[in-house]
Amino acid sequence: MPHSIKVKIYYEDTDAGGVVYYANYLRFMERGRTEFLAEKGINVAELHNQGLFFVAVHVDISYKRPARLGEIVDVTTEVTEIKSATMTMRNRICKDDFVMVDALVTLACVDRDGRPRRLPDSFKSCNA
Amino acid sequence: MPHSIKVKIYYEDTDAGGVVYYANYLRFMERGRTEFLAEKGINVAELHNQGLFFVAVHVDISYKRPARLGEIVDVTTEVTEIKSATMTMRNRICKDDFVMVDALVTLACVDRDGRPRRLPDSFKSCNA
Amino acid sequence: MPHSIKVKIYYEDTDAGGVVYYANYLRFMERGRTEFLAEKGINVAELHNQGLFFVAVHVDISYKRPARLGEIVDVTTEVTEIKSATMTMRNRICKDDFVMVDALVTLACVDRDGRPRRLPDSFKSCNA
Amino acid sequence: MPHSIKVKIYYEDTDAGGVVYYANYLRFMERGRTEFLAEKGINVAELHNQGLFFVAVHVDISYKRPARLGEIVDVTTEVTEIKSATMTMRNRICKDDFVMVDALVTLACVDRDGRPRRLPDSFKSCNA
Repeated sequence: MPHSIKVKIYYEDTDAGGVVYYANYLRFMERGRTEFLAEKGINVAELHNQGLFFVAVHVDISYKRPARLGEIVDVTTEVTEIKSATMTMRNRICKDDFVMVDALVTLACVDRDGRPRRLPDSFKSCNA
Repeated sequence: MPHSIKVKIYYEDTDAGGVVYYANYLRFMERGRTEFLAEKGINVAELHNQGLFFVAVHVDISYKRPARLGEIVDVTTEVTEIKSATMTMRNRICKDDFVMVDALVTLACVDRDGRPRRLPDSFKSCNA
Repeated sequence: MPHSIKVKIYYEDTDAGGVVYYANYLRFMERGRTEFLAEKGINVAELHNQGLFFVAVHVDISYKRPARLGEIVDVTTEVTEIKSATMTMRNRICKDDFVMVDALVTLACVDRDGRPRRLPDSFKSCNA
Repeated sequence: MPHSIKVKIYYEDTDAGGVVYYANYLRFMERGRTEFLAEKGINVAELHNQGLFFVAVHVDISYKRPARLGEIVDVTTEVTEIKSATMTMRNRICKDDFVMVDALVTLACVDRDGRPRRLPDSFKSCNA
């Protein structure tokens, strides 16, 4: 069972098409990843204050069914690969086990100047 | 004649109500203020890199008529008051001289730690 | 005791100044109002599907202390006035009883064409 | 030469990492696609009013170098494939011919209920 958080859709998330704006699923997914890492004992805000950032280097995202105002969806997070300086996670937006949006997101660890840095040792625990 | 820029409404700006989301007019107004200041020779990004930030301390905004997808609106900016560490600007969203949204925005100058700082001398030219 | 929800600050909410972007507090406040109304039995998404919308007509917002990445803040909602077609709410962003952001938000009830409509009877319960 | 628009980076686009938030490049790209289509005589807002929407079904996006506050970048748009009900476009964020962000975006044409619809004939002109 992957890690999961609930996200409710508010007006701010939607567009004139009546559904969630396509870029906003990436926001939900980052919330999911942040909470996944928090559960592993990794505090993204603390790392930020220490000068370690996680930047997206690649996102592959498929949209199958849009989310609507007032819906509550599940945002799931799983690690698919950890390398020395990057990690890839699968994020899904689901409703009753139906996958509405499915993404692979690769993040790199960088310092304040954008230079690659090794992932902290604490990330080893994410692999399980 | 106040300073004015054109802003076109895209899907990203709208919500499921079919019009611009109420918070997003503040984004347009900040674009307007940034371009107003640029015209006065004040580069907000350069000041940012020097550690000087302008943070909103008060916004009073009235919404009269919403903007819709595809509309091109005027965002006007005028200075109404400059003090030693704050300035107040009037931002309006207009269409054909009709004021759709009308705001007074007070900004304070602060450093990286959020402490008040005097406005740079270059702001004196904004008063005219 | 006003109604209150918790909001955690993610990267999406912040800007290069290192704190929450000034427009984004309005997003948090709308989340707070939506949950306040839900607790009163009023489902904003259902009303939306029936063609009833709540649009901001006036916001007066004071920013005292910004919220930072990773912070969890309280968003409180109270009704200050209900009229036939508008209602005014006080929304505050708080941390440990300190008011960081304080706003009065007046909303009007409109139909799909933006014409004023009476607030549904269910709103009477919000007054208590 | 692909179609190109200029986008300036404002505070609203950035996050606490000091650069553009990863989801926001998708907003810039949609602005680029909208202007590309406008140049071909296709008005996205008019189609919207007629009940025709273009929804993303797949995005593959690579981030090479982030954009910073105050930067002006080029957002380029090219059509790579047009089918009966979908079209794929390449969107790039560039600075002085360096590709900062590179994406392939596949859009489907749907009606108000989300059912697939053929692309209007006017899209044939996009292929050239």
